[in-house]
Amino acid sequence: MKKKSVSTKGKAVKSASKKLGFGLSSRAKRSRPQPINYMLSAVAANPGLISLAAGLVDYETLPTEHIAELVGEVMKTPKSSQLAMQYGSTEGLTQLRQALLEHLASLDDVAVDHWKADAGNIVVTNGSQQLLFILADVLVDPGDIVITAWPSYFVYTCVLESLGANVRCLEMDENGILPDSLEALLTDLEQAGQLPKVKIVYVTSYHQNPTGITLSADRRERMLEIVKKFSKHHRILLIEDAAYRELTFEGQAPPSIKKYDRDNKYVALLQTFSKPFAPGFKTGYGLLPSDLVEAVLNQKGNQDFGSANLCQHMLYAAISKGLYHKHVDVLRKNYKKKAHAMLDALNKHLGDFFPGKTHWTIPLGGLYVYLKLPKNIDTGVKGKLFKKALAEGVMYVPGEFCYGPDPARKIPNNMMRLTFGVAGIKEIQEGVARLAKAIKAVAAGK
Amino acid sequence: MKKKSVSTKGKAVKSASKKLGFGLSSRAKRSRPQPINYMLSAVAANPGLISLAAGLVDYETLPTEHIAELVGEVMKTPKSSQLAMQYGSTEGLTQLRQALLEHLASLDDVAVDHWKADAGNIVVTNGSQQLLFILADVLVDPGDIVITAWPSYFVYTCVLESLGANVRCLEMDENGILPDSLEALLTDLEQAGQLPKVKIVYVTSYHQNPTGITLSADRRERMLEIVKKFSKHHRILLIEDAAYRELTFEGQAPPSIKKYDRDNKYVALLQTFSKPFAPGFKTGYGLLPSDLVEAVLNQKGNQDFGSANLCQHMLYAAISKGLYHKHVDVLRKNYKKKAHAMLDALNKHLGDFFPGKTHWTIPLGGLYVYLKLPKNIDTGVKGKLFKKALAEGVMYVPGEFCYGPDPARKIPNNMMRLTFGVAGIKEIQEGVARLAKAIKAVAAGK
Repeated sequence: MKKKSVSTKGKAVKSASKKLGFGLSSRAKRSRPQPINYMLSAVAANPGLISLAAGLVDYETLPTEHIAELVGEVMKTPKSSQLAMQYGSTEGLTQLRQALLEHLASLDDVAVDHWKADAGNIVVTNGSQQLLFILADVLVDPGDIVITAWPSYFVYTCVLESLGANVRCLEMDENGILPDSLEALLTDLEQAGQLPKVKIVYVTSYHQNPTGITLSADRRERMLEIVKKFSKHHRILLIEDAAYRELTFEGQAPPSIKKYDRDNKYVALLQTFSKPFAPGFKTGYGLLPSDLVEAVLNQKGNQDFGSANLCQHMLYAAISKGLYHKHVDVLRKNYKKKAHAMLDALNKHLGDFFPGKTHWTIPLGGLYVYLKLPKNIDTGVKGKLFKKALAEGVMYVPGEFCYGPDPARKIPNNMMRLTFGVAGIKEIQEGVARLAKAIKAVAAGK
Repeated sequence: MKKKSVSTKGKAVKSASKKLGFGLSSRAKRSRPQPINYMLSAVAANPGLISLAAGLVDYETLPTEHIAELVGEVMKTPKSSQLAMQYGSTEGLTQLRQALLEHLASLDDVAVDHWKADAGNIVVTNGSQQLLFILADVLVDPGDIVITAWPSYFVYTCVLESLGANVRCLEMDENGILPDSLEALLTDLEQAGQLPKVKIVYVTSYHQNPTGITLSADRRERMLEIVKKFSKHHRILLIEDAAYRELTFEGQAPPSIKKYDRDNKYVALLQTFSKPFAPGFKTGYGLLPSDLVEAVLNQKGNQDFGSANLCQHMLYAAISKGLYHKHVDVLRKNYKKKAHAMLDALNKHLGDFFPGKTHWTIPLGGLYVYLKLPKNIDTGVKGKLFKKALAEGVMYVPGEFCYGPDPARKIPNNMMRLTFGVAGIKEIQEGVARLAKAIKAVAAGK
């Protein structure tokens, strides 16, 4: 093989082969980089930037002080060490799945047999994201319909677009998705003969990403009933993404939608260790209807036949030794303080800014506040404000990323997601001050 | 919501809804459980069984004694601890990817810039399985052609079937795939107008699963040249699965096929920490052509946006402190002993059994021996021998699982995969003795 050919022929061949790409699949052609990637690069390129954008968790309260203990527990005997370092199973560590079923029952204050489910209905995945992906992959063909909130979690929207799904969206108010909006959409779709294409209704039921809004208790059973009512051609799956559930820091978290799914037939409840413990373990899980388990495990088997076993053993130790629950309390208190810091700063800097046209959500948990600005202020990545904010040294997530491509709706460009997750209290205060300065400058035409 | 309705109407509704399934996607309908699952259940149901089937690694040589040191290194400072417990990136830990590029270069005894690639060409995945899955997912539409060996790694074949690929297979001899067989198949496909559908040629280049056979040095560049020659409509990707490469225990491992891909354009080289270190970390990686990286990362972003960060930090510590390389040496010596135990036992118990009609491979590394029996002995799960072997207390992988659904070929039913991976030396000896007893009984019509 000659590395460099000087003959004309050689050059021609080389240049033709240079242009020749791989033959990408339809799915790959529909896929695109996560919008968050763009923002991560912006962070890397701007040292000193305060990120009110990144979906990271608080550094200071990561359970670093427990790691030695967890490892000690896992490595207690030669046998226990070996089991943790060997391959696990596709579905996940049995004792962990049993503990998670008990944990979910306890969060809903019900008996462990409430759903007539057992550990076989729990699947452990590479973060709850992998379960979101797999559930979509096993249900959605190109052209099928998935219903999400307006706005909704943008990584999930990217998944749906890569699968060629038609994304339709549901109106929200301060109490979450309007069930009437779901009923109206499903009625319309049925009349249009599209009901057989509806596969999934996706609801982030606690402290939603990006709005921070929780679906109120009185809407939960109703959402399920509507899904049941329209499950005429096949069961429509209600995916309850409860990633932020355990980070409820004000009042009592409402019961899950899953609680009402007594026969374990319509709702997949997804939770994770990433938000309430540590993302470094990359471990999520779901409680699934029995007749979905095989399809999910077939795909999980194809994708990786099991998530990191060492992490699962450590997390089982965290739960069984009580460290997990203790740590969630620490996180809740800390995020409550940080949320208040953000809300106070917003009040301080934007309390008088176009009242009635400026609004932000008051989260009862989770990591996010959603800020609405007067309509003439464009929050998009290509707008003035995003650049101005970067110049001031602060970054947010433009609202435009958070809306699915619903043909019936127009994406608003005056929203932004702010997170109090990763920044410390002083950074949050300074970040909001910088942001307010940028907003006021843009509003003043500067 | 009433739990039990006694009205006839209620019952009718309940029974109708009971039958109503979810609307599975075409992909889910094409997917099936991994054959290995069936065997895992058989193991669980038969205590005392010696498994010469399970694709697990040796328990005794798992690097359990290094874990405390690795965790200590990762948790050295508050900052380093926090980084390991936070989210990582989709592509994987930067310093790990750089170290892996250097590692791959060193295995091929070339300079780190040999492929004109950098750490950006390395992607870390949830085992190398996830990268196999993603590469197929981004290249293969239903009806596209993927070429594998005959026999080949059965989990990968399941992936291909779930994607709706047409699987075509290549003849092997004791030196691996016959390059002429690849050239002949591609020529036929081109003549049939099918060349535009050929997306991937999949080669397990070292100590292949299931045969234990290594592609000989003189065939490697030729395989690449053929792939290049037929890359007329798009580049065909040659996936070099080198999972067992570092477990070479006899002689020198040949250079990778990737070594000859100086422009980093045709070959994706996949390796893993699972076989040469520990599966519990579930961490694999690949060196990819630059123009495949974005498509792969888009899908990885959709699937999980990054593998377990804690594991990656620990593995980086293992490499940078030299523990990884030391441990691979330990494994190599151990597997060499176990391979010899198996080969000696086969000689002892089956050396005189229908010579000329009985044959087994002599692996130079890896975990597998492939045993061929006289044609009238059916090794399949539904045959006499499999049951007889279970009754004797030993399990193998029937060869029938290891052949893709190539319409031009007939699956042989007199082969089996044996592994010396998980069993200890005495178990290997006893397992082969039991197996030989079962084989002889079946041959004698018992």
